[in-house]
Amino acid sequence: MSERFSRVYVDRVLDPSYRNWKRLYCADAMDVHKAHLVMLRERGIVPPAVSEAIKRGIDAIEASCRWPDSIPDGAEDLYCVFEEKLELAAGAENAAWLHTARSRNDMDTTVFRLALRRALRGFLEELAACCTVCMERARAGVGELTVLFTHGQPANASTMAHYLSGFLLELLEGADALIQAMDSVDRCTLGACAITGTGFPIDRGRTAQLLGFRAPVPNTYQAISTSHWLIRPASAMRLLLSDAARLAADLLHKSSCEVGLVDFPDDLVQSSSIMPQKRNPVVLEHIRIQAGLAAGVCVSIEDLFRSVPFQDVNEVADAPVTDLLDAIATAGSCFALVAETVRKLRSNAARAREIAVAFGVTTTELADTMVRECGIGFRAAHRICSAFARSGGDKAKLRAAFLESTGADLAWTDSRIDECLDPGRFIAVRRTAGGPAPEGMESVFAAAEAGLSRLRAALDEMRERNARAARELATAWKGLA
Amino acid sequence: MSERFSRVYVDRVLDPSYRNWKRLYCADAMDVHKAHLVMLRERGIVPPAVSEAIKRGIDAIEASCRWPDSIPDGAEDLYCVFEEKLELAAGAENAAWLHTARSRNDMDTTVFRLALRRALRGFLEELAACCTVCMERARAGVGELTVLFTHGQPANASTMAHYLSGFLLELLEGADALIQAMDSVDRCTLGACAITGTGFPIDRGRTAQLLGFRAPVPNTYQAISTSHWLIRPASAMRLLLSDAARLAADLLHKSSCEVGLVDFPDDLVQSSSIMPQKRNPVVLEHIRIQAGLAAGVCVSIEDLFRSVPFQDVNEVADAPVTDLLDAIATAGSCFALVAETVRKLRSNAARAREIAVAFGVTTTELADTMVRECGIGFRAAHRICSAFARSGGDKAKLRAAFLESTGADLAWTDSRIDECLDPGRFIAVRRTAGGPAPEGMESVFAAAEAGLSRLRAALDEMRERNARAARELATAWKGLA
Amino acid sequence: MSERFSRVYVDRVLDPSYRNWKRLYCADAMDVHKAHLVMLRERGIVPPAVSEAIKRGIDAIEASCRWPDSIPDGAEDLYCVFEEKLELAAGAENAAWLHTARSRNDMDTTVFRLALRRALRGFLEELAACCTVCMERARAGVGELTVLFTHGQPANASTMAHYLSGFLLELLEGADALIQAMDSVDRCTLGACAITGTGFPIDRGRTAQLLGFRAPVPNTYQAISTSHWLIRPASAMRLLLSDAARLAADLLHKSSCEVGLVDFPDDLVQSSSIMPQKRNPVVLEHIRIQAGLAAGVCVSIEDLFRSVPFQDVNEVADAPVTDLLDAIATAGSCFALVAETVRKLRSNAARAREIAVAFGVTTTELADTMVRECGIGFRAAHRICSAFARSGGDKAKLRAAFLESTGADLAWTDSRIDECLDPGRFIAVRRTAGGPAPEGMESVFAAAEAGLSRLRAALDEMRERNARAARELATAWKGLA
Amino acid sequence: MSERFSRVYVDRVLDPSYRNWKRLYCADAMDVHKAHLVMLRERGIVPPAVSEAIKRGIDAIEASCRWPDSIPDGAEDLYCVFEEKLELAAGAENAAWLHTARSRNDMDTTVFRLALRRALRGFLEELAACCTVCMERARAGVGELTVLFTHGQPANASTMAHYLSGFLLELLEGADALIQAMDSVDRCTLGACAITGTGFPIDRGRTAQLLGFRAPVPNTYQAISTSHWLIRPASAMRLLLSDAARLAADLLHKSSCEVGLVDFPDDLVQSSSIMPQKRNPVVLEHIRIQAGLAAGVCVSIEDLFRSVPFQDVNEVADAPVTDLLDAIATAGSCFALVAETVRKLRSNAARAREIAVAFGVTTTELADTMVRECGIGFRAAHRICSAFARSGGDKAKLRAAFLESTGADLAWTDSRIDECLDPGRFIAVRRTAGGPAPEGMESVFAAAEAGLSRLRAALDEMRERNARAARELATAWKGLA
Repeated sequence: MSERFSRVYVDRVLDPSYRNWKRLYCADAMDVHKAHLVMLRERGIVPPAVSEAIKRGIDAIEASCRWPDSIPDGAEDLYCVFEEKLELAAGAENAAWLHTARSRNDMDTTVFRLALRRALRGFLEELAACCTVCMERARAGVGELTVLFTHGQPANASTMAHYLSGFLLELLEGADALIQAMDSVDRCTLGACAITGTGFPIDRGRTAQLLGFRAPVPNTYQAISTSHWLIRPASAMRLLLSDAARLAADLLHKSSCEVGLVDFPDDLVQSSSIMPQKRNPVVLEHIRIQAGLAAGVCVSIEDLFRSVPFQDVNEVADAPVTDLLDAIATAGSCFALVAETVRKLRSNAARAREIAVAFGVTTTELADTMVRECGIGFRAAHRICSAFARSGGDKAKLRAAFLESTGADLAWTDSRIDECLDPGRFIAVRRTAGGPAPEGMESVFAAAEAGLSRLRAALDEMRERNARAARELATAWKGLA
Repeated sequence: MSERFSRVYVDRVLDPSYRNWKRLYCADAMDVHKAHLVMLRERGIVPPAVSEAIKRGIDAIEASCRWPDSIPDGAEDLYCVFEEKLELAAGAENAAWLHTARSRNDMDTTVFRLALRRALRGFLEELAACCTVCMERARAGVGELTVLFTHGQPANASTMAHYLSGFLLELLEGADALIQAMDSVDRCTLGACAITGTGFPIDRGRTAQLLGFRAPVPNTYQAISTSHWLIRPASAMRLLLSDAARLAADLLHKSSCEVGLVDFPDDLVQSSSIMPQKRNPVVLEHIRIQAGLAAGVCVSIEDLFRSVPFQDVNEVADAPVTDLLDAIATAGSCFALVAETVRKLRSNAARAREIAVAFGVTTTELADTMVRECGIGFRAAHRICSAFARSGGDKAKLRAAFLESTGADLAWTDSRIDECLDPGRFIAVRRTAGGPAPEGMESVFAAAEAGLSRLRAALDEMRERNARAARELATAWKGLA
Repeated sequence: MSERFSRVYVDRVLDPSYRNWKRLYCADAMDVHKAHLVMLRERGIVPPAVSEAIKRGIDAIEASCRWPDSIPDGAEDLYCVFEEKLELAAGAENAAWLHTARSRNDMDTTVFRLALRRALRGFLEELAACCTVCMERARAGVGELTVLFTHGQPANASTMAHYLSGFLLELLEGADALIQAMDSVDRCTLGACAITGTGFPIDRGRTAQLLGFRAPVPNTYQAISTSHWLIRPASAMRLLLSDAARLAADLLHKSSCEVGLVDFPDDLVQSSSIMPQKRNPVVLEHIRIQAGLAAGVCVSIEDLFRSVPFQDVNEVADAPVTDLLDAIATAGSCFALVAETVRKLRSNAARAREIAVAFGVTTTELADTMVRECGIGFRAAHRICSAFARSGGDKAKLRAAFLESTGADLAWTDSRIDECLDPGRFIAVRRTAGGPAPEGMESVFAAAEAGLSRLRAALDEMRERNARAARELATAWKGLA
Repeated sequence: MSERFSRVYVDRVLDPSYRNWKRLYCADAMDVHKAHLVMLRERGIVPPAVSEAIKRGIDAIEASCRWPDSIPDGAEDLYCVFEEKLELAAGAENAAWLHTARSRNDMDTTVFRLALRRALRGFLEELAACCTVCMERARAGVGELTVLFTHGQPANASTMAHYLSGFLLELLEGADALIQAMDSVDRCTLGACAITGTGFPIDRGRTAQLLGFRAPVPNTYQAISTSHWLIRPASAMRLLLSDAARLAADLLHKSSCEVGLVDFPDDLVQSSSIMPQKRNPVVLEHIRIQAGLAAGVCVSIEDLFRSVPFQDVNEVADAPVTDLLDAIATAGSCFALVAETVRKLRSNAARAREIAVAFGVTTTELADTMVRECGIGFRAAHRICSAFARSGGDKAKLRAAFLESTGADLAWTDSRIDECLDPGRFIAVRRTAGGPAPEGMESVFAAAEAGLSRLRAALDEMRERNARAARELATAWKGLA
């Protein structure tokens, strides 16, 4: 006997999709059924006896259900299988009412949004944990001398606090962007039905509320056609992942043998099977790779909608959503590695001092002090100090250059010169808002604390809204019997 | 005599960069010099005589300057050329003071942010104009019958208002995202100097204010290393461009000869040089292409920072910024085409009615009405109406299916059946919030008006803040003499 | 007691990697051990007794091995676990010899190349099957009238053979590109050791041969650092996937209700849960989506190497390779769907004729015939026929336009005009090489057959080379005892 | 009076396109007109008097033509303007014949392929020059000691020859891929007309030959619809650009102050305006950036065809092609910088020796020699030498570990141990094919020379074929008078 669907189609499309649903979306679908039925009953669209029968049917299915391993012949999706079970459990007459005033279009995308929202919330928790680690490590690094680089070359003396809080502020800005993106995710499509809503007197706000959404999507056609709930969080995650990979690239340089400004304990370092001397901090590479792979999926999701008609299309179905969920998990893993890396990284102040001296990274400050104290312009001071730097730090050359340029002797003792070149002083005078001196860091820490508070408050709001909705749905559901 | 720089390096890097600066960034650089000097003077860092001399020098350069066509030998960039000019105009002693407490790092990225901010504001203006056109066209289409599709097949009767406002709400959501992204653009990096700020008692807030920025970037290392001011607007633009291309793809279908739901006046249609009968609405393809090319640059900018160390790098310099400015111009062009397309598209209600009947797109409503009026469940009604649809609209088949399924006769006259199938009634009953009936569209238009107001308010705020800053800078500048 | 590695690192990096190895790379690793040991013995690097002991150890492991579910504490990877097992099975003294003259670097990338080669060969088989279907369907469509489109508008009458063979030739060109890309995959890295080879007198050609590779990678540093074996096949697959998605987009248009040039049997069509009339050929969307997702991974792999130092890096390790293997599987699925779609698509000649007439797609030929038979230039004929087309096919208008333009009467009877407009004749005269007339199709089919033969020959060569190597390795392995 | 086209459409589409044509495609279009006319005449399709008139008209246009600055009102493109000029120059009657048996579809894509072919050939010349520099620099570096890295850590002693030839082989493999991709570019679409060819007895092979193409595209529908001629070279360029950026990333590390294995002369180094000590080899960053931006366009071109129907579409028109031409120019610039960088990079053997000793990069060889000479297994030797490495090179520790592990004394003198650790010996013994010893490098240089010969031969073939065609076209053209 011929089958309903082509074998190839079943093997390549329907069955993989069914397995995705079974693994990832089943529980959320049950919540959607419940919220929809509660609303239908409250609005008088479904008679009490029917809603009670359906409620008992769904309860029975939840209590005992074992879904087939693979999609049964003739079924299009897991929902077909569910419908059959419900007909058995509640009677075909009653079961038929559940799909009143809805379509798989609005039902499915609501389910996917629930799953995506949970995954993103989980990711934001992981990110908040990482930010907390960065904050603690940055606070601990206020007096920790390091050297910072531009274009790969040692540039300025600074502190680990200054460096890590700069990264932290980037993460927090990324977190803000992701929270803003949640606004496109955390909206309910139920009631849009196929695309134009329905003639039944439904209440879209009520189902949205019972499922803990911020609000329904305003326009029913938009609700079914929009890609924003996938693209916006994907873009926001990419930004965060890009920052993670950039930190890893920078730390790879700082932790290389020859630079040695930071290193890691043995439990983050791998060896070589053939080179006995190797200590590879490959955790940094794995941050880069996980960031790259997760970001790759994010781009993929964004590109998927390229030139796809502004209609309901299967790009908003389980295959892409599942890939995005996987990418969110990878991104979470990436930030767990970032947190572990930041928590455990040890800086080497002695080496920082060594590099600072060897490559003259504080010469800038010598020039600046010259401007402030010797009454000469910045360019002149810069030229005098360049000559000094090129000489490898020969004070006689400095004095000669000063004399040549200004016609006067440099009025500083050698120890005054050394003081001007001292990395500690270099940092201490950089009280500019946002600079490494403790005074400069005040506004930085304030900004970071504010960002972290925003992130935590957003998480609290989501968590509470969702918990409240879950309670309300449970109560209303119980009330159907 | 040997040159300072390799010929290849000059030809491939320095000179192209110099030309970019000359063409695009010169005027903004002057504002940055002015704001910096005003602040230096206000903070007492530069003596009055010096600031006055520099002011006159800069005024003279602005009044008469002709920059060389290509970069002069030995110069690294346009700033070097400017410095030389200033030395001539203000005296070397005086000129030297201007670069006190800054670096090319903070100076350049401030200049780029000014240019980018202006371009994005211009794009937002173009987007707002497009949204206004969509709003007007949507309002005009409240009673304009059309057919909407899912998966490329006719699905529901609806209105042009419903369709176009769905698209409009997407654009407005994208506009919100871009305005949020401006938060990473519209921040000043001045005072970060190389990366750690300076020992001079500068006021970063003051320069930020004089240049009309929202605020300085909090951490000075972050200020120089961050990619967010490039990536965030690029991502937000991609979202908008994706929507434009999706609309174009959908309209290509709707305007194809065979579908014929919309068409365009002759002034948007091209012919064939060989096929006399052709009328190609290739404006839609050009929307798709311009969206694709502009989006391509946006991705390119995002990818450029892949695994690039979290440091000051030349990825935040003129080559990528210039590409992004070009992409913003292309994106603006794309939305001008979208506006023109939406403004001029004509819908064909007669053809919509024809398709609605031919492909039974209102059968859903027949089933729904059966549920509401005949007291049967949704699934049963759906099955009955499926049989009717398969018969090609044979009412006898409908009655037979009803009888078979329910054991009762369908109590409707033929004209009642026709009424249930009428596209006008289909729309009229869809009063769900967000549906096509006038009642459903109320909340849609309200949401769209709110979005449009947010967009206009954001533009007003930017425009006013920048105008205010320009006035303040001009006054302060005059005060230096 | 403290563990060797950080718990986070184990959970997020080592264990997922171990599970990848266990699932996908274990068997290939065994082959690599065998080939390496055979070579070491043949070159006299390992004493006979040792190689015999190792052989027996590996045989025992293969016969009975159960790998732990997750990575054991302290192990870096599956190879560590294998080494421990081998020490138990062959004695630590003996086991130690196996890793002579190699590193995990060359060992791992050889294993990955084996796995990738097999997956790509499998994909090429699937592609060849799809091409065969396209060839058969194209051959069957030589007389099957259809309409072809440009810019979404009906353009020319043609045949299904012409259309499908155009697509087929694209696939075959893509297959050529993928086979060329195999040249970067099908090369052995063994003997490169860490990156500089070894002082032991190994024979790199011999291990390459025993594992069925074309040759070793020439330079040992290159062998370990290159990304080409991942990027090149990824790029080639993208091209193929792009073509698949483009075909799907075109067929979506052709199979839409309103166009109706092709349709699909019920076993490839899904219905709607709410719209009784819907027949959605969503298989086309799934081709587009699977193509998009697989292509997304391909881009991701290409981008992963962005700005990653030209060194041995973990981007050539299991995480990216595994993602690429998954993408190859998705791409295979996509082409199975393409094959099924092409095999089952039915064209509608009556509808083609209808569209041809309604939209005047043969008017071009009327103009051309006018040029050939009436001695007027192409532009004039085009103008005359444009007037005819605009009139909706009014022959009087045609005659009037001819008279006006040429000053002479058109010497054709009405039935001659009809003949000139006949789609069948339109096709029959298009004998240009590559055109739809049977004469034109000869060179097309010849080119397609040649391409298909190249593809099959390449597959045969790979299959045979690999089978021969497997036999040779088995024999040599047995010889060690 | 109303204009033919919408002002917005003219400003945003027609005029920019016209300017592209004027700037980039005009001369190639003339060649296409000539080749087409010659063929029409040879095939007797156009009468001698007509072809002579057209020839003189085109000659006159070429001799004196000044195209308007912007597109004239009513014109669709530059071809319309050309047609008008030709009507004036040759008489409308005659001019009309030129467009016989062609369409803008086949004409335009042939023009674009000519422009793209020339740009790619130019790029390949630049690439060949870069490869030649790499070959020379590699040859010069056979005895030049360096240290090579894995995962960012010093791994093995080696030579500049080994390192640079590894990179060179990558480039040559990329060049092979690009030459293969030319197969999709270097094919003529003329004669495909709109998409189905023509009823005129044209000779597609002849026009292909006169324009120096390898052959016509086989199927006329494919000819107009294919994206391969854009995507394939874009993909191949990406691979090359990826390698360039990876080399830059690696050299950034090697040239950092702290590593110091390579450095650059002053004419490739920029300074800081604020940090007197800075020497930034930013040429490496510019390689990375130019590679990134050019690669970005390449991806953009590939993505542009995403889900675009397999039809003639404007994605194969001037806007994308122009972007690709720009990207090819940027890619050429990038490889000019790579060549300059490789040519001028200086390695520091003393520093290499220092790093080799400090980080024990030759310890591997100590272990290997132990295996070969002391009759112990590899693992044991590795463990012994690990202990030695951890001790910081304490020979007593080495002896103790040997004794503990083997029960015997290590029979080597201290100077023998030093010899085993000597970087020079480390290299000398690595005679493995592909390793750094002169014997190992033989096959490497042979492979590189073979690749370079292939590249040069391919360039010669293209150059000669095109020159021959140009001569043949000129002669045939003259013959028309």
